[in-house]
Amino acid sequence: MDLNIAVLAGDGIGPEVTQQAIKTLNAIGEVYNHNFTFKDAVVGAAAIDQTGDPLPEKTLKVCLETDAVLFGAIGDPKYDNDPSAKVRPEQGLLKLRKSLGLFTNIRPIKAYPTLIDKSPLKEDRINGTDLTIYRELTGGIYFGEKKLNEEGTVASDLCEYSDFEIERIAHLAFKAARARKKKLTLVDKANVLETSRLWRKVVTKIGESYPDITLDFLFVDNAAMQMILNPNQFDVILTENMFGDIISDEGSVIGGSIGLLASASVGEDHSMFEPIHGSFPQAKGKDIANPIASILSAAMLLEHFKLYEEAKAIHNAVEKALELKVVTTDLDPSSKYTTTKVGDFIADYIANSE
Amino acid sequence: MDLNIAVLAGDGIGPEVTQQAIKTLNAIGEVYNHNFTFKDAVVGAAAIDQTGDPLPEKTLKVCLETDAVLFGAIGDPKYDNDPSAKVRPEQGLLKLRKSLGLFTNIRPIKAYPTLIDKSPLKEDRINGTDLTIYRELTGGIYFGEKKLNEEGTVASDLCEYSDFEIERIAHLAFKAARARKKKLTLVDKANVLETSRLWRKVVTKIGESYPDITLDFLFVDNAAMQMILNPNQFDVILTENMFGDIISDEGSVIGGSIGLLASASVGEDHSMFEPIHGSFPQAKGKDIANPIASILSAAMLLEHFKLYEEAKAIHNAVEKALELKVVTTDLDPSSKYTTTKVGDFIADYIANSE
Ligand SMILES: [Mg+2]
Ligand SMILES: [Mg+2]
Repeated sequence: MDLNIAVLAGDGIGPEVTQQAIKTLNAIGEVYNHNFTFKDAVVGAAAIDQTGDPLPEKTLKVCLETDAVLFGAIGDPKYDNDPSAKVRPEQGLLKLRKSLGLFTNIRPIKAYPTLIDKSPLKEDRINGTDLTIYRELTGGIYFGEKKLNEEGTVASDLCEYSDFEIERIAHLAFKAARARKKKLTLVDKANVLETSRLWRKVVTKIGESYPDITLDFLFVDNAAMQMILNPNQFDVILTENMFGDIISDEGSVIGGSIGLLASASVGEDHSMFEPIHGSFPQAKGKDIANPIASILSAAMLLEHFKLYEEAKAIHNAVEKALELKVVTTDLDPSSKYTTTKVGDFIADYIANSE
Repeated sequence: MDLNIAVLAGDGIGPEVTQQAIKTLNAIGEVYNHNFTFKDAVVGAAAIDQTGDPLPEKTLKVCLETDAVLFGAIGDPKYDNDPSAKVRPEQGLLKLRKSLGLFTNIRPIKAYPTLIDKSPLKEDRINGTDLTIYRELTGGIYFGEKKLNEEGTVASDLCEYSDFEIERIAHLAFKAARARKKKLTLVDKANVLETSRLWRKVVTKIGESYPDITLDFLFVDNAAMQMILNPNQFDVILTENMFGDIISDEGSVIGGSIGLLASASVGEDHSMFEPIHGSFPQAKGKDIANPIASILSAAMLLEHFKLYEEAKAIHNAVEKALELKVVTTDLDPSSKYTTTKVGDFIADYIANSE
């Protein structure tokens, strides 16, 4: 397969971890005979420094013309800590999602046996957890009309959803469940919210076309409990934007390390893959950042293009690295492995395990 | 002190656990020379059976005329599992909160050393946790305008807040922090929501009148993570209605048993105290339900009337019961103690420990 990939490495540790993801993809390309071409473009604080714009037109054009975007991280204290800053790195990310029509955020959460001692949950709760969250990303209360009266005493936010916004992500979630454990849980608050009742109606209707998938429903407050009590019960979770924000961040800590979590944002025509961690400016250039989340985001990219065997090869290599403790110091304080060395190990393992 | 207390024991296990709370309050009255008078009234499924209304006028009148309401639990499968039921027990609770103007829900969360093995969190995370959540209860998106277009394809919910709704609960929360560890955390989503920005502005302003209280802010998605990672960091959490629903339910499972959690709902003129658990119809009349949450709700009632020493006496008795394993089978499967016996122990301990 030929894939043109835009690389938006961004700020802080973004470039150094993304480099390991590229290294990994190159190893996959070698072994499985794919032709991956990478095209760099600037974004975030780096882009503000160069052009004054966190998402320059040229970068957007690269993203629109390539098959997928591999994203690093953005954010720099120079802008984040300056309340008078008019342009912020994060605006680049929001504009990019919008411009590419990325309406679904996918967040897999997995308990790695070697990391269970780092989880805040007891072993019997987290053991075997392997779920994925499909969060609607461009609608709901975050994007609804905002009002503040002139006196500044009454404020409001509107949460709005249309059936087509629910349908398109629901199909993606049902299909994901079909390739996994065949269970889909819709998280809503249908006992109180009109938008949730619409979600339930639309998702139930679509579910009729996926008779092999078990569909169930959970109120968001109950979901917040179940994520801690028994995360094992979940396969695919489907939910609206704000509930997804809360539940996926809650879920991100149960595995024991956010340095291992990747996410994908997908739409009809475009897709973007990134680690969930931030730009961690304090570690920039020190070759100490954990590259695994970025490497796993590359695996999600491969899955998106149905290269399942290739994605599995990355997962196997990552699990081997964890097992042999070829990890950065966030996972093992006594480790001697750098960002680069972890990337080398994973790429070599892929290249040589055939 | 003379206190007239309305007793709305409700459905399922409501009556039997509430009976233990009354027993406990009577012991307190004896020891500390208070005059507690109890007035029974029907609510929930029991009220529907008798009058067709889950909150009969007569019950509301009793609540309005007494100093506080001691509430049990409501809900009965007869109504809950019948989709055609027009009158539901829960409507009684919502109407009661509204009629009494109960705009603040208070939910303490505490890790009991004897129950840490039941917590889904590891001991080092949960050890020493003692926080309380102040949740706004009558505003926000649960009560805002709901719309569905004629075709049933577009739905919306409005989240609205006025400054006075925030001010009145903020004062209660700051005062609570003053009597505790002097820290208040506002949970919001001020980077996205206009209502959250209003909350932040109003609470910051009110904070100037409480210079002894440390005020900090947390986005709700981050709060959902921190509640698991390090619940110890919290003292008083203040938040709007829906965020409070999610965060307090999440928090309710970290201690290891919801059979120990009580809540208070308070307004300007009225107040209501109840266990957070439901009516548990399967256990009705079997004398096996855990009465401690109901008993602790009686302690919250005493605290509300500034009877701190008396409330402390209940807490001490509960802790002694846990320590000596004078508990129901939900906490110790081999236990021989019934609901009544646990109540007896706690009342006796109060009566005799002076
Ligand atoms: Mg978030
Ligand atoms: Mg709830």
